[in-house]
Amino acid sequence: MTRFDAGKLAALMAVELARRHIDPESNQHVVASLVQTSLRGVDSHGINLFPHYCRAAEAGRINSRPHISISRTGPSTAVMDADHAFGHHAGAVAIGEAVTLARQSGMGAVSVRNSTHFGAAAYFGLIAAERDCLGFAFTNADALVKAFGAKEAFFGTNPICFTAPLQNESPFCLDMATSLVSWNKINNYRRETRSIPSHWAFDAEGKSVTDPHRARSLNPAGEYKGFGLGMMVDILCAILAGGSIGKDIKPMYALPLDGSKRGISHFFMALDISRFSEPALFRRNLQAMVDRVRLLPPLNPGEAVMVSGDPEKKSFLRRSVEGIPIDGTKYAEFLALSPEFKSARAP
Amino acid sequence: MTRFDAGKLAALMAVELARRHIDPESNQHVVASLVQTSLRGVDSHGINLFPHYCRAAEAGRINSRPHISISRTGPSTAVMDADHAFGHHAGAVAIGEAVTLARQSGMGAVSVRNSTHFGAAAYFGLIAAERDCLGFAFTNADALVKAFGAKEAFFGTNPICFTAPLQNESPFCLDMATSLVSWNKINNYRRETRSIPSHWAFDAEGKSVTDPHRARSLNPAGEYKGFGLGMMVDILCAILAGGSIGKDIKPMYALPLDGSKRGISHFFMALDISRFSEPALFRRNLQAMVDRVRLLPPLNPGEAVMVSGDPEKKSFLRRSVEGIPIDGTKYAEFLALSPEFKSARAP
Repeated sequence: MTRFDAGKLAALMAVELARRHIDPESNQHVVASLVQTSLRGVDSHGINLFPHYCRAAEAGRINSRPHISISRTGPSTAVMDADHAFGHHAGAVAIGEAVTLARQSGMGAVSVRNSTHFGAAAYFGLIAAERDCLGFAFTNADALVKAFGAKEAFFGTNPICFTAPLQNESPFCLDMATSLVSWNKINNYRRETRSIPSHWAFDAEGKSVTDPHRARSLNPAGEYKGFGLGMMVDILCAILAGGSIGKDIKPMYALPLDGSKRGISHFFMALDISRFSEPALFRRNLQAMVDRVRLLPPLNPGEAVMVSGDPEKKSFLRRSVEGIPIDGTKYAEFLALSPEFKSARAP
Repeated sequence: MTRFDAGKLAALMAVELARRHIDPESNQHVVASLVQTSLRGVDSHGINLFPHYCRAAEAGRINSRPHISISRTGPSTAVMDADHAFGHHAGAVAIGEAVTLARQSGMGAVSVRNSTHFGAAAYFGLIAAERDCLGFAFTNADALVKAFGAKEAFFGTNPICFTAPLQNESPFCLDMATSLVSWNKINNYRRETRSIPSHWAFDAEGKSVTDPHRARSLNPAGEYKGFGLGMMVDILCAILAGGSIGKDIKPMYALPLDGSKRGISHFFMALDISRFSEPALFRRNLQAMVDRVRLLPPLNPGEAVMVSGDPEKKSFLRRSVEGIPIDGTKYAEFLALSPEFKSARAP
């Protein structure tokens, strides 16, 4: 297993994006999001996606030089046309606008259309929480999750991200797909030719499978409840923005990788905590609650209870020192982009 | 099985509450919520709770004559002190205020403290959706859901309700506890002395149980994901309002049923759809999406695919004609309140 030093890697990724004439603001957010996400241990949405993003920008599917337009439609609302920008860029502008609206009127909501894959939703939620807001980030995606009671997938893994500031550490961060497990996890089991648990995925007929190669759709988290939450996300994203719903979005890895657009929609909200509570009191009370959860008697001795985001915080600390692991295939893809990436290896 | 006619029952319930000097607005919302909820088939949160509510009001746990105070803290935010009113009343005022704020500035959020059990969250979400808003309703509750990785419960079943208007029918309504099943379901299996599936509940040591009598905590929906969502709800409710978190809330049926307060917190949001999309277009697009889901090839032939709220809509139609079923024990409790309830039996 090769490891990248986060700082060196970030600098080289920025160079590669600049060589491809990617808009400077897009460049900054793509690099920041991917590196942060990998440091947080979320390998499905981190630097592993970088080679794909480069190809998608080269093909024109992602717009390298977008004209993002945003219109306020009320004291607490705005709509954005992302002009097929990197979703990381569009989302960062949108959550920034939601925070600005929240400062002015208590909350802000921004609906985004004509966007692309935005990476990890946490990247945006954390921006809000670091500015003393509660943050929400949602996106739709291509159909991968089986509709409850049906044979086939209809909505995407449609994530829900919710963030809130803590007193003594980085924010509380829930960032969850509304499927029980990610498609990435199915892919890992395929590579390792291992059986998957029978409640993870379904075949083309909607029957549960243990052979990962026969998996065609994922189980929603909590069965009909996760299906309902996924539908909520597509309402907040696609229906509100007038964009395509999951079933009509071209899969991320569909070939040919050409200039046709995916038309992904996002939705962001920020709430100004100070309109409800003294922010310092809020952070103290939330910290106390989080600390109490962590001190509950663990089910398995020695395995402390964790709250949402704790595994990511642990990974962040470890990988900031040890570097970001990358497997041989992906490492080769980075070297194919530029042999310079060899110099980003962690010592 | 006895059945009540909804209209006759509502009139008699209102008389019983008036005899107990319940505030007229509380009276109206308690009756409307309980009857609507039972018609929608949600027996855990409908008229079955009426005798308990009467006792709780008589004991002073619920304030019969509350002074609900609401303060705007921004163009889109308000905070409410519910003065231990019936949660049905407090919640209806709060979602009404959220809709008013949304009309004025695009969205509205209202944080509620010092409240009591509010019944079904859908009652509030539907009020928003019927006024061309997206609605959100949340409440915390006493600890019943096992903290993921711990031995014991920490948060309540902390529901999430999300609503949106449709073109040809009553609104889309997702109203879900963040536990996999409700405690009520465990109680049903206890009464019927049946085994529960092993993934529903846990014993005092946090081990999964099939004997419902040994169940002490519920499994969150989607495991750590439902646990995270439950925590999100307690942040939006208790931490924002400065109220008690799940672990510190007195159980609903704790004895003695005295005047000590439960201090439940709620949180409501409304979004004015017209700030994002032409409302008629939104309703048409959402209707088209819902219709497509319902027409997906069903997993089990003849069992059409449903979206969130469809089982409740079917129940509403059936029970509006056939009446609301009530078991012998509960029927006796109604008769103990007043023999008049005999006249509310459906023909």
